[in-house]
Amino acid sequence: MSEFMGPRYLLSNDTAVRLYNACKHLPIIDYHCHLSPKEIYEDKEFADIGEMFLGGDHYKWRLMRCHGIDEKYITGDASWGEKFQKYAEALATAAGNPLYHWTHMELRLFFGIDTPLNGKTAASIRERANAVIREKHLSPRKLIAFSNVEYLSTTDDPADSLEYHKLIAADKSFATRVTPAFRPDTLMMITKPSYGAYITRLSAAAGIEITDFTSWKEAVLKRLDFFCEMGCRFTDVGIENFPSAIGTEEEAAEALGRALKGEEVSSCAYNQFLGWCYCWLAREYKKRGLAMQLHIAVKRNTNSALFAQCGADCGGDSIRDAIPSDDVVAILDKVDREGGLPKTILYSLNPTACPALSTIAGSFRNVICGAAWWFCDHKQGIIDQIVNVAQTADLSTFLGMLTDSRSFLSYARHDYFRRIFCSVVGQWIEDGEFMDDEYALALVANIFHDNVARLIAE
Amino acid sequence: MSEFMGPRYLLSNDTAVRLYNACKHLPIIDYHCHLSPKEIYEDKEFADIGEMFLGGDHYKWRLMRCHGIDEKYITGDASWGEKFQKYAEALATAAGNPLYHWTHMELRLFFGIDTPLNGKTAASIRERANAVIREKHLSPRKLIAFSNVEYLSTTDDPADSLEYHKLIAADKSFATRVTPAFRPDTLMMITKPSYGAYITRLSAAAGIEITDFTSWKEAVLKRLDFFCEMGCRFTDVGIENFPSAIGTEEEAAEALGRALKGEEVSSCAYNQFLGWCYCWLAREYKKRGLAMQLHIAVKRNTNSALFAQCGADCGGDSIRDAIPSDDVVAILDKVDREGGLPKTILYSLNPTACPALSTIAGSFRNVICGAAWWFCDHKQGIIDQIVNVAQTADLSTFLGMLTDSRSFLSYARHDYFRRIFCSVVGQWIEDGEFMDDEYALALVANIFHDNVARLIAE
Amino acid sequence: MSEFMGPRYLLSNDTAVRLYNACKHLPIIDYHCHLSPKEIYEDKEFADIGEMFLGGDHYKWRLMRCHGIDEKYITGDASWGEKFQKYAEALATAAGNPLYHWTHMELRLFFGIDTPLNGKTAASIRERANAVIREKHLSPRKLIAFSNVEYLSTTDDPADSLEYHKLIAADKSFATRVTPAFRPDTLMMITKPSYGAYITRLSAAAGIEITDFTSWKEAVLKRLDFFCEMGCRFTDVGIENFPSAIGTEEEAAEALGRALKGEEVSSCAYNQFLGWCYCWLAREYKKRGLAMQLHIAVKRNTNSALFAQCGADCGGDSIRDAIPSDDVVAILDKVDREGGLPKTILYSLNPTACPALSTIAGSFRNVICGAAWWFCDHKQGIIDQIVNVAQTADLSTFLGMLTDSRSFLSYARHDYFRRIFCSVVGQWIEDGEFMDDEYALALVANIFHDNVARLIAE
Repeated sequence: MSEFMGPRYLLSNDTAVRLYNACKHLPIIDYHCHLSPKEIYEDKEFADIGEMFLGGDHYKWRLMRCHGIDEKYITGDASWGEKFQKYAEALATAAGNPLYHWTHMELRLFFGIDTPLNGKTAASIRERANAVIREKHLSPRKLIAFSNVEYLSTTDDPADSLEYHKLIAADKSFATRVTPAFRPDTLMMITKPSYGAYITRLSAAAGIEITDFTSWKEAVLKRLDFFCEMGCRFTDVGIENFPSAIGTEEEAAEALGRALKGEEVSSCAYNQFLGWCYCWLAREYKKRGLAMQLHIAVKRNTNSALFAQCGADCGGDSIRDAIPSDDVVAILDKVDREGGLPKTILYSLNPTACPALSTIAGSFRNVICGAAWWFCDHKQGIIDQIVNVAQTADLSTFLGMLTDSRSFLSYARHDYFRRIFCSVVGQWIEDGEFMDDEYALALVANIFHDNVARLIAE
Repeated sequence: MSEFMGPRYLLSNDTAVRLYNACKHLPIIDYHCHLSPKEIYEDKEFADIGEMFLGGDHYKWRLMRCHGIDEKYITGDASWGEKFQKYAEALATAAGNPLYHWTHMELRLFFGIDTPLNGKTAASIRERANAVIREKHLSPRKLIAFSNVEYLSTTDDPADSLEYHKLIAADKSFATRVTPAFRPDTLMMITKPSYGAYITRLSAAAGIEITDFTSWKEAVLKRLDFFCEMGCRFTDVGIENFPSAIGTEEEAAEALGRALKGEEVSSCAYNQFLGWCYCWLAREYKKRGLAMQLHIAVKRNTNSALFAQCGADCGGDSIRDAIPSDDVVAILDKVDREGGLPKTILYSLNPTACPALSTIAGSFRNVICGAAWWFCDHKQGIIDQIVNVAQTADLSTFLGMLTDSRSFLSYARHDYFRRIFCSVVGQWIEDGEFMDDEYALALVANIFHDNVARLIAE
Repeated sequence: MSEFMGPRYLLSNDTAVRLYNACKHLPIIDYHCHLSPKEIYEDKEFADIGEMFLGGDHYKWRLMRCHGIDEKYITGDASWGEKFQKYAEALATAAGNPLYHWTHMELRLFFGIDTPLNGKTAASIRERANAVIREKHLSPRKLIAFSNVEYLSTTDDPADSLEYHKLIAADKSFATRVTPAFRPDTLMMITKPSYGAYITRLSAAAGIEITDFTSWKEAVLKRLDFFCEMGCRFTDVGIENFPSAIGTEEEAAEALGRALKGEEVSSCAYNQFLGWCYCWLAREYKKRGLAMQLHIAVKRNTNSALFAQCGADCGGDSIRDAIPSDDVVAILDKVDREGGLPKTILYSLNPTACPALSTIAGSFRNVICGAAWWFCDHKQGIIDQIVNVAQTADLSTFLGMLTDSRSFLSYARHDYFRRIFCSVVGQWIEDGEFMDDEYALALVANIFHDNVARLIAE
């Protein structure tokens, strides 16, 4: 019987404890998150744990909706105290939900609070936590520094000025390296009615008037080079549609040309354009030594009424069907043949695709699967992906954890992952299936820190 | 080492034992089963355990066929003694099959028999069981009462007279509440050659001559209202095809009109009709406060020769591919936007769809996933669905177990589920991942009984 | 804490140890492998463990590529010593990979070496192993005999002369029965440019000039009969495409006729031809009492550049999407209706299909699911498939393990499977979920040996 959230929390065996203690000091490299560089730069002191917990964390909003809590207390005009109270009521019976784990880890890590959160304890916990905020002047940078974050990569649009990245980089008082990631989703979504307005923004950002395919490519590459100047090492794409065709350059030019003129682009032409874009960008990433992240099998704004009410990223998304593996292979194989793949990291929101994706990754050099993502980022999902990669590829090249989060409190998730990882490997050792030697320690250090550190340094 | 089928059977830890003992007295609410109201009303004393076990239980028939037993001993003209013997022979080596668990639970629960069933013990067990039947005058109602069933919902066709439901309700000597569920599968399957005959039956039941779309809708709603008068709280659909389009009212009228005239309905028109029906019925359910159950990804009568020989529901069905998640979302989102969803419960026979479905459910208010169903209703399947719902939605709103059975002995499955549920939650507590407090007990009581009791009382 | 690779290796409980010890003496029946009959016949003494390990084992090549090792040390011109060194370096941190288990089992079983293999130990292990090779004159037949292999079935093309099978059968000094399996993949792939050349070879092998559909069928059946004369009991198919249509005999004749004339066959016509072939061959297998193995959901030569460089079977394949279950049902149901199915064994490389396939198998007599295959042949995959079959079909009719391997060292995989199988069943017994009696022992003996022995003897 382990103590609730005790020191051996999620460490299921003695070897896990030993591995964890040997490597827990390694700093965090959060190579994919959605933190706001503006908030990092401005570094405003937080005012209320309610806001810190519930200001933008759609994971928590979903749990509250599932629990039947009125939207007023989720994204509505209730006070932070009322919202925190309602969240606590939902959390108390949320057995097995990662939020139950993360919330208590966050309370302990950042506020030193060990009391289980529920409807009865919410008010006093909030009071204690708010006292800690005031006493320690908790702010974004404080949380990042306290979490021992060495490096973090935000997620940024090609048209973004990166002005806050510049300001952060210029501020020598902040030790954590903050870099942008190039995320061209909006750039590629040429069927959106707002695409014309986006092109105007992109033209301004690039200092190039985009009038045709040639100037569009020029502007994109200029932005990509600028991202690289700003320290960018990672790119990402996470749009719903994975291309099922790869258009020629002529087809891509034709589709983009229509979009630039405000003409309709057929879904077939869009699909070809997308396939061409994935390949073209992959080659450009390769030239610049950037890693390419593909986030696939996501359905966005599943609940259209909620989207209309609260907008995107409010907790109304879901897992989509597994992408046809032939489509993924088609892109990877073409890029591989024509110059080689950049370091490529595949993430599937649908866990049923993970075995196939891992064997596809294992068929190409430079391609690996990433950590369990979003709806899969829970204890069993993390274990499943560790075991999947171990069985069908090479666990020692796994890049470990990233938060993928919008909350400064989410660094607790790295500790969550690390404990689970050590439990899995420790169990193999205790069962006599893996040697308890220097290679085991090297493996843990690689996954906690060293692999991604090497990738960034490349 | 646990004793075979001992008191800690399926209770894998001490906390599980404690949680189970605290809540095992809670009555059963079997909100979805296929028991015969006629048999409940007539309440004939059973004559032979062979008939009780093997008279209509296609789970057992399948195991016998897999074991290579001749059809004569399954659905053929062998005696109950011979059939029971053959079943026992198949069961003895069926390690890991839920029938191994259920059968021994049923023998203990209803007959007080602890002896493992196999070819050598079959004859004496049958003798002892038949003596118990005679001594206790075992009958459907005796089994239901002995199982502490507070409420049960059968599954009924809209054209059904519900005469036995009336008779049961009128008989005050039977404490269990028996209600019908509205299952419009046949109503919607307008491409069947027998649809005309069905409409004749439906017209008679409704007292409305169905001649067109308008009178069809009127008749359907009249039946629905009648079901509500008879206490109906649940609806269900379990046809093979999940609609991949949603027809307009005009398209639905056109398709139904053709069916009423005996003309061919194209598969495209049928698909649109089905989509329209799902949405229309959902709205009508919502108005009446009924819960809507969607059973998806089932392949019926997979073995056509067996179907020709033994008919439907004889053990020749299988798991179908996961339904495209976009199709499920399309229906839910449309109904949600146009007046809101009734309480909706999703069941997928293909377990690979469960993570996606749980996140779809979590994107809408009033939508949840149901218990592991049919081919997934085994120890690992039950655990997987508990963990899936816990991780990706809110376990505390889960509706717990239902038998989905045609056998009066199947109430043992509730105990099966309850033990497994307590083991999962108990393990989380023992591992320090969930608090051992009043909320844990409330969670167990909610899942055993209270959640569905509240739903019925709404 | 179990000793690394100790006597209880992979035996997770005391009952597992007891079951394993009671049945471990049973000989191996390797009813599906890719060993070379020529190498078995010639029985050349091995020269170097590097060649034994890395001469043709694409599982090991994949791991090395995943680890980033240069192709020179994989399929290139490096020496066996260099290759063995690089493999050892990749293996040392490959926690959870079946190669970590298999490699150490092979070192212990065939060479008596207990030292963990890594970059530091590679040279001395190679020296010791090579000394054992020389001392014991290790050769293919020595390894087979030492592994207690009673029977093995290779995998052979219909046009193969089977000359080495004849020679092996004539050599009474070798106790293991070596038989061919009929694998008509190339026979059916009529869209390949090389099909004409294949027909020439087939004509020669059959002694029939193939000029049309009639002579083609005649030649195929003559080869099939010849395979039967040579002791063939198993057939197999493993091409990428599973037919989604079943052509008529006329359509098949038309498609084949075009292929024989070197004309283009459309993908639609090929698909129909394939469906017809599957059904036709199934009927012919049934007549001859042969078992039919269907290996599905595989993507071959995923990496086209690697294929161009190293050819097929070099480690560039992957898991494909699950086959539509309706397609599998269509074939099985048609054959079942028209004369009955031969013993049919289904293998899916995509594990997500396994629950559906197991219930499809359970809907037909004579159809079962096979062992976890290729990318699924690891500890968790083996457990998952045992549990899947146990839950949804009848574990006692499972056919147990096969190596599916090209390496003479792979007999360690049988021991791997046997230990895992006993752990699963032993745990059920220890948890009180299965009786610890003669039926448990019979179940283990059936799965280790007796079921497939009976099938061969039929």
